[in-house]
Amino acid sequence: MADIPLVSPLFAGLFGDDETAALFSVEAEIAAMVEVERALARLQGSAGLIPQAAADAIDRELSGLLPTPAELAAGTAAAGVPVPALVAALRQKLSRPAADYLHFGATSQDIVDTGLMLRLARTLALFEARLADIVAQLSALATRHRATPMAGRTRGQIATPVSFGLRVAIWTLPLAKARLRLARLRREALVVQLGGASGDLGAMDVPGRAAELAGALARELGLAPSLPWMTDREPLRRIVREASEIALALGKIGEDVILLARSEIGEIRLAEAGGSSTMPQKQNPVRAEALVALARFAAAQAAALSADALHREERDGAAWMGEWLVLPQVMLATGAALRHAQALAPGMEADAARMAATATGGGGLSLAERFSFALLPHVGRAAAQDLVKKAAGLVRAEGGTLAEALSKLSDAPLDWQALADSSSISGAAAAMTDEMLAEIALLAHGDDGHA
Amino acid sequence: MADIPLVSPLFAGLFGDDETAALFSVEAEIAAMVEVERALARLQGSAGLIPQAAADAIDRELSGLLPTPAELAAGTAAAGVPVPALVAALRQKLSRPAADYLHFGATSQDIVDTGLMLRLARTLALFEARLADIVAQLSALATRHRATPMAGRTRGQIATPVSFGLRVAIWTLPLAKARLRLARLRREALVVQLGGASGDLGAMDVPGRAAELAGALARELGLAPSLPWMTDREPLRRIVREASEIALALGKIGEDVILLARSEIGEIRLAEAGGSSTMPQKQNPVRAEALVALARFAAAQAAALSADALHREERDGAAWMGEWLVLPQVMLATGAALRHAQALAPGMEADAARMAATATGGGGLSLAERFSFALLPHVGRAAAQDLVKKAAGLVRAEGGTLAEALSKLSDAPLDWQALADSSSISGAAAAMTDEMLAEIALLAHGDDGHA
Amino acid sequence: MADIPLVSPLFAGLFGDDETAALFSVEAEIAAMVEVERALARLQGSAGLIPQAAADAIDRELSGLLPTPAELAAGTAAAGVPVPALVAALRQKLSRPAADYLHFGATSQDIVDTGLMLRLARTLALFEARLADIVAQLSALATRHRATPMAGRTRGQIATPVSFGLRVAIWTLPLAKARLRLARLRREALVVQLGGASGDLGAMDVPGRAAELAGALARELGLAPSLPWMTDREPLRRIVREASEIALALGKIGEDVILLARSEIGEIRLAEAGGSSTMPQKQNPVRAEALVALARFAAAQAAALSADALHREERDGAAWMGEWLVLPQVMLATGAALRHAQALAPGMEADAARMAATATGGGGLSLAERFSFALLPHVGRAAAQDLVKKAAGLVRAEGGTLAEALSKLSDAPLDWQALADSSSISGAAAAMTDEMLAEIALLAHGDDGHA
Amino acid sequence: MADIPLVSPLFAGLFGDDETAALFSVEAEIAAMVEVERALARLQGSAGLIPQAAADAIDRELSGLLPTPAELAAGTAAAGVPVPALVAALRQKLSRPAADYLHFGATSQDIVDTGLMLRLARTLALFEARLADIVAQLSALATRHRATPMAGRTRGQIATPVSFGLRVAIWTLPLAKARLRLARLRREALVVQLGGASGDLGAMDVPGRAAELAGALARELGLAPSLPWMTDREPLRRIVREASEIALALGKIGEDVILLARSEIGEIRLAEAGGSSTMPQKQNPVRAEALVALARFAAAQAAALSADALHREERDGAAWMGEWLVLPQVMLATGAALRHAQALAPGMEADAARMAATATGGGGLSLAERFSFALLPHVGRAAAQDLVKKAAGLVRAEGGTLAEALSKLSDAPLDWQALADSSSISGAAAAMTDEMLAEIALLAHGDDGHA
Repeated sequence: MADIPLVSPLFAGLFGDDETAALFSVEAEIAAMVEVERALARLQGSAGLIPQAAADAIDRELSGLLPTPAELAAGTAAAGVPVPALVAALRQKLSRPAADYLHFGATSQDIVDTGLMLRLARTLALFEARLADIVAQLSALATRHRATPMAGRTRGQIATPVSFGLRVAIWTLPLAKARLRLARLRREALVVQLGGASGDLGAMDVPGRAAELAGALARELGLAPSLPWMTDREPLRRIVREASEIALALGKIGEDVILLARSEIGEIRLAEAGGSSTMPQKQNPVRAEALVALARFAAAQAAALSADALHREERDGAAWMGEWLVLPQVMLATGAALRHAQALAPGMEADAARMAATATGGGGLSLAERFSFALLPHVGRAAAQDLVKKAAGLVRAEGGTLAEALSKLSDAPLDWQALADSSSISGAAAAMTDEMLAEIALLAHGDDGHA
Repeated sequence: MADIPLVSPLFAGLFGDDETAALFSVEAEIAAMVEVERALARLQGSAGLIPQAAADAIDRELSGLLPTPAELAAGTAAAGVPVPALVAALRQKLSRPAADYLHFGATSQDIVDTGLMLRLARTLALFEARLADIVAQLSALATRHRATPMAGRTRGQIATPVSFGLRVAIWTLPLAKARLRLARLRREALVVQLGGASGDLGAMDVPGRAAELAGALARELGLAPSLPWMTDREPLRRIVREASEIALALGKIGEDVILLARSEIGEIRLAEAGGSSTMPQKQNPVRAEALVALARFAAAQAAALSADALHREERDGAAWMGEWLVLPQVMLATGAALRHAQALAPGMEADAARMAATATGGGGLSLAERFSFALLPHVGRAAAQDLVKKAAGLVRAEGGTLAEALSKLSDAPLDWQALADSSSISGAAAAMTDEMLAEIALLAHGDDGHA
Repeated sequence: MADIPLVSPLFAGLFGDDETAALFSVEAEIAAMVEVERALARLQGSAGLIPQAAADAIDRELSGLLPTPAELAAGTAAAGVPVPALVAALRQKLSRPAADYLHFGATSQDIVDTGLMLRLARTLALFEARLADIVAQLSALATRHRATPMAGRTRGQIATPVSFGLRVAIWTLPLAKARLRLARLRREALVVQLGGASGDLGAMDVPGRAAELAGALARELGLAPSLPWMTDREPLRRIVREASEIALALGKIGEDVILLARSEIGEIRLAEAGGSSTMPQKQNPVRAEALVALARFAAAQAAALSADALHREERDGAAWMGEWLVLPQVMLATGAALRHAQALAPGMEADAARMAATATGGGGLSLAERFSFALLPHVGRAAAQDLVKKAAGLVRAEGGTLAEALSKLSDAPLDWQALADSSSISGAAAAMTDEMLAEIALLAHGDDGHA
Repeated sequence: MADIPLVSPLFAGLFGDDETAALFSVEAEIAAMVEVERALARLQGSAGLIPQAAADAIDRELSGLLPTPAELAAGTAAAGVPVPALVAALRQKLSRPAADYLHFGATSQDIVDTGLMLRLARTLALFEARLADIVAQLSALATRHRATPMAGRTRGQIATPVSFGLRVAIWTLPLAKARLRLARLRREALVVQLGGASGDLGAMDVPGRAAELAGALARELGLAPSLPWMTDREPLRRIVREASEIALALGKIGEDVILLARSEIGEIRLAEAGGSSTMPQKQNPVRAEALVALARFAAAQAAALSADALHREERDGAAWMGEWLVLPQVMLATGAALRHAQALAPGMEADAARMAATATGGGGLSLAERFSFALLPHVGRAAAQDLVKKAAGLVRAEGGTLAEALSKLSDAPLDWQALADSSSISGAAAAMTDEMLAEIALLAHGDDGHA
């Protein structure tokens, strides 16, 4: 069998994720569809749409029943959807007249879509738990390094000093928001599908009760109620988007880690970096690379879903099939990315000395902006900038620090050494880190999607 | 100048939209940035960060000031961002010491991002109003045709009869939900940016007050508060996604209209169809085609944004520039699609006779499912299907209707003619239409994003 | 294990393809890499870079050796690439000093990229053979129906009559061109990779001989020579693009078949259409739907590859990994699409009577353009159009045909019945079909990419 | 008017390109279509399809005639394509009977597609010239630095030393190949469109002469001949792909330049870097950032074109419109990227000392691989690696260089200092640079697409 990397025994450690994979196994798919058929029967029994005895028999006799993929493969190929073969296989195993009332008035899409939502519900719960763990780990790291000076880099250039903790908080905040959005997804996008052949529940003959029945089915299955959404696939796109947003937020961490672990920068060390037998100096940032690759992949798959967005008429077979090809991949990729991020954080060790050296090295030229703004109220913008430029010239020509040079050049009542000392340097960053951590803590306790 | 279709005088009627275009003009962009600088000065005056007199002067003297693109072009090319040139141009026009305190402690990204959000706020308000209009128009159309029988088509095949009103309601519900989501966007995603050079507001020297100041700036500008999101571009992607979702929902209408207006189907006529001088039988569905083209385009642009999602370190120039290239196009395309949809609805005329003929023609074979389910409780599934199959064979061989054939073949106590009559045929669809319209009405009055 | 549809036992009939899958199995991947290591040793022996005895031993002892994925999984996860674990596993099985000279001076990317090209070479050969079969099948179908009148449809509207054969020829020509382009790919894009650690073959110490050695390795493996392309991934993107172009050309057939098989059109019947137990009138065009879904999927995956296009510095781990995630999927999807197309053609039956009825029905209004142009030299454009318009009005009001009406309205010396008869109607289309078939035949015998 | 960055007066220096823009102006579009109508008339006169006098009059009277966009806008909106309005406007200006024979038997798509190809031909010629210039500039730079030692970086880690010249050659080779592919495009993909209403040239009544007439029209216009490709849009996708490949090859340069110009690396200086008034140490790599942003944008637009790839039936209005929205953007973005690359190369100054310091600094640990392979034949792989590891340990503990440590630890007959000296270090890279430059020179003189 083809062995694409997301599900390959060779690449399992790089791109695989066992828990997500289990939720997207063929067995899980078939089991979810059987679960939907049983819930439908229970609901229809209670609502008087089918005989209560038939409903009970369906629910009882299908418990634990699971046709194999081999039993369903030919029928799936013939019909373009697995449900007819599944229903036929189940009917063979059911007593009469229960068999007659299985799948009563339903259509294949009711079963496939609702079954998919059941699996997505479990997947999102898994992602939420992992996100919570990563947020907790990174929050601790950010707290520890809230005031560890590090060069802020904008557009690839050293700008003003920040702290490593602030960088970590910046990584964490989007993850905390993403976690909270998952709670909202659970309420809004994990919707039951119940429409029948053409979407009007015609064969069930329940005029005006569509919302009521969908609500009842949703309650049976722990999903959200919905009128039919057979051609309105926004809920699926939203779920996929949120998964890819998680992957993207982790991919940004990956990019930053690759840079921080570069040979010339070396501000973090990675416990698990990939070595080279002939190049002892190398520390390949494997997990970080995987995070970047998986982020781009997940985003591209989410985009691919939009190619299947225009569902024509009452049901569009081609567009529907297209969704099946794309959706599991986003979930698998995001699951793998979460796994890497969980493992990456504890192995990331900051080299505070090297960070500080870069942040304030070269005579503290990176403090130029800080000094300019401090001087401004005393001498005005133009003079402040002139002084700082002159001081920078001195540092370059004669060595020493910008603070020393300015204390000679300017008589403004400023304590240059205090402005340049380490705690002062990272003071603003530490304060911003604290504000971000407070927001993250708030988000961590919310379960409403105000993110 | 290059004349790309979204902004071309030649293609204005197909792909242009004046109102959205005005919001994304160069003048609007510069004006929005000036607005942000003024609001920042007011806030900093109130907060004691700059002298109140300077703040007042900035606010007053910049009122109505608008540098031209020509003044800023060279500086924009040199810096890779328009703000340095803008600030320099404004300072030249300000009195001293106001000039010194303009843009105090801010960074280019604070101004560009916040200015963009101001324009997006106006764009989303425009979209919301247009969506409301379209939803109202289509709701009226759905109501009028709630019981007009039409063939339901699944996978390109006639399935069971529905109603034209149901199809229209299915078009409308996603639009009503999209409108409601715009209200949520307004609260959550239209966020102020305030971070300074490296994101910690270091030059403003306001430790612990970042959230407070951002909140104050947000209030000045009617935006939502936020801690810095310089590298967390999820809010932008969310806005773009919601715009593209609108375009996709309209694109589905386009696809359906193209099919309904086909020569062989002809169930709707379009007031404005494009004619052909040499082929008098043609009615090209121009607006519907544009809806499809714009939907795919908007979705592709939204996807393009994910290529710029991984912002490295404290600020990523390349990724940021990438956003500028993509974002306006989604808004322009969505604006144009909304314009077409507003014009399309009133010119859409249903041919109820032709709809009915297709829905129930051929002896009423499309009622087969309906009759099967009606028979099921009386004779069981297998016998019901056998009877219907036999009846279908009779219709094909000898003419007549399925109802007539079944009334001969079966003695089940069913009123076949009643089951087959027109109001009965579209009964379920009419009821579903009503449920959808009720939901649409509910959504139309909400302003909370529970969609 | 997760069971994504491309490789699922449940969906094998819809989205799977055994032959392509075998070429992308884990075993095939490992075998290809071992093949590269052997060829490298042979070449290095011949070139005097390693002792001939070591080269011979490597080649001989590795024959048939195939480490299992389980042996390599941990090492692959640690290094981010399977080669170090593979080389270590092979060295354990080799005699000394052969073990020392395995992988001499090579880098992981040399082995992975070249091994991938070997598998792609086999995949493209498979695709080429299938394309040839489909082109032959469709050419026969086009020949058979070269003059079978069918309505030409432009923009969803019946335009002028063509022939079913022309439509089929239009499907076929792009496939014939695609087949020919595969021959070009074989020569130009299936390139060997040989660069060593940083791309300059430094550890092999062969200054000025890179092209010569790459050429020799290419000859050993049946690939094309190349200087290192470690960060220039255009060859991979080209291969993927050509595969996706095949899928797109087949997807167009899918879209057309879905339309031709629609209930209201019914101009073709599909031998294998998916039925419905409760809706006997339905003939779901399953294979055609799969063609459309696979086409969109393959194109989206090809696009995803561009997200990994910017390889930084001498080797970019993240971008490289990203390719692995995407590339096999395009090949699998294209393989599945080719399989469907091979099966679809023989089961496609044209309903010539229905085609003709639509093409010339309604009094032959679709001949309006034909008649206008015939009249033009006799009466001028304006008068010609007026006459035809008047005639069309008569047909609509009183019945009869456009030819009859024009023979009354105009005294131009034209034989209206001859212009309207069936062979005349499809004459231009038949001639164009013949020209296309001639071009297709020419392309079928070429093996140079002049397509 | 909306002012999207590609065509904005504000952003002209960043994203604009005057020459490309001129080729995609509305005036150029209209002029190209008029050019096609004239050529068609000339051809039809020669071929006896229309009276020679009419052909002459059309050709003569339309010379220099150019309707304004305003004249055509309403008609374009009504028809969904500009040709009917254009033909009507031209007919008003033509004498009789020339007016009758304008656009004889042609369809809008013949004019639009062929006109587009004319503009693309000019665009590709422009790109080819610019590529040639960039290739020449970079070749000179690579030659100059063929032996300038620089650290090779793989996966973000310093690997073995290479040369700056090799890096530049690696940038250049894909551009030289791309230039050569443009020559192939000119021959193969710049194809004339001539099909008439439904693609069979029915109204021209020229059975069997389609290829001949298309060939004649192609000769008139300097395009390639082709049978109709109304729904086979592979040629357009190929052109767009090649343009985006150029942008991607330039984007890789952008990414590398951003890294080389980083504050911590500083191995190149950029003449035009964007400064910061308050951060004197910053050198923002503006052009390099724009190259990256434009590369991603162009690739995303090329991908967007695949969403419009499935053209249904004889002509697909929606898919066709979708192409118009996307295609000009790829050309404009690629044009802008080429402009930046032309300006970037001369301003790039290598800091050879800093390059060398990084390449061989830290005691020459980056030479570990080199020394291991040198030792291998003398002591075997295991012992070689042990010795190098031991030596690396000594360097880390006690200073000195790896060469010194090995000369003490090993008695293998190797000249360690020679192996470590600067010319030796970059010897392999210099040789590879030479081989690449030779290949580039070869490609530069080819005009056959063997790339």
